Amino acid sequence: MRIEILVFPGVDELDVLGPFEVFRGAEEAGADIRTQLVSLDGDQHIKASYGLTFDVDGAVGSDGRADLLVIPGGGWVKRATHGAWAEFHRGLIPAAILDAHRSGTILASVCTGAMLIAAAGLLRNRSATTHHAAIEELRASGAEIVSARIVDDGDIITAGGVTSGIDLALYIVERFVGKDMADGIASNLEHERRGPIHVSSSARRSDETRIVS
Amino acid sequence: MRIEILVFPGVDELDVLGPFEVFRGAEEAGADIRTQLVSLDGDQHIKASYGLTFDVDGAVGSDGRADLLVIPGGGWVKRATHGAWAEFHRGLIPAAILDAHRSGTILASVCTGAMLIAAAGLLRNRSATTHHAAIEELRASGAEIVSARIVDDGDIITAGGVTSGIDLALYIVERFVGKDMADGIASNLEHERRGPIHVSSSARRSDETRIVS
Repeated sequence: MRIEILVFPGVDELDVLGPFEVFRGAEEAGADIRTQLVSLDGDQHIKASYGLTFDVDGAVGSDGRADLLVIPGGGWVKRATHGAWAEFHRGLIPAAILDAHRSGTILASVCTGAMLIAAAGLLRNRSATTHHAAIEELRASGAEIVSARIVDDGDIITAGGVTSGIDLALYIVERFVGKDMADGIASNLEHERRGPIHVSSSARRSDETRIVS
Repeated sequence: MRIEILVFPGVDELDVLGPFEVFRGAEEAGADIRTQLVSLDGDQHIKASYGLTFDVDGAVGSDGRADLLVIPGGGWVKRATHGAWAEFHRGLIPAAILDAHRSGTILASVCTGAMLIAAAGLLRNRSATTHHAAIEELRASGAEIVSARIVDDGDIITAGGVTSGIDLALYIVERFVGKDMADGIASNLEHERRGPIHVSSSARRSDETRIVS
């Protein structure tokens, strides 16, 4: 299972690194998962919301279609010059998200990353959540807001704010690898998993997304 | 209040970024806190335990004595060539920690960062904790193990594994800035604060460490 985490200037550090450490931890523990940090154009350095500057592995999709694309948020509420709000209006990342979704990639957002999926027009009449401070904006995009930490709507999975990214990634490991693996990683992180997790009935009917058994 | 987070090759990503985002968040919210990522020699790039490569702001202590030095862990259990176990045996970081402590800097460890404070000889007969997989090694160093997520022993504060670093940093913000600030940051992170927090009686008697009022 190939996972890409799509980063951009002003992205929230923990939105990125929570899922990153969970997925790389699963890989170290033997899961058939490969996780990369990717940017839109393959920019090599990204300066995140709180000032961390870090390296990126390449451009989104440059190794072919990913099975799962993680979309973090950051800087939304403060309307930062760099961040999810800026990318919502610039439109290039939403376009890349739309392309990925059309080619069959599962989308998973952390925090206000959901607004970037909404900007791609993909959350209309779909169950979703986001950071509590952006809920009304997500609703205005046409999404059906669910009061849960993680909302699994099949090919689009959304999560609440920042630290919910850890629970999102553990849920994804549980869904695609198994519960023992997810619980083992949570224990290693000394993280008490939190919900609620909402799984849409359409998502429950679908089995084709169980990529890793 | 000047905070340095001491990073090294193989350091755990979330051990570093949890406290980093909490402290920088407090700074953005108006607290008189300045937080920097520092390395022993001022190396500009650090490759962390799960492969993240990130930039460092400078060398430990290069801007003068910090009020608080955060010591993350990483790679201990797997005896990684780079990480806390390697630094424990190399001895240079423990020596820098000892220097900082002698000059009056408060120490705060996340995860197996406690083993680096132990290597400096500073945890003998002191209340402390660490990642659950390193508890017996910490006990063997002479520390009095306390079963808590955070152990405040006054000028040395230790925390459990990985995600406990978020709770540690929130506790530090609460201790030195105030509870409202800490709760506001936790809410922004959608993080449910977790304990138990153990405060040693000697720490409770001391007020001189309340740097920011």
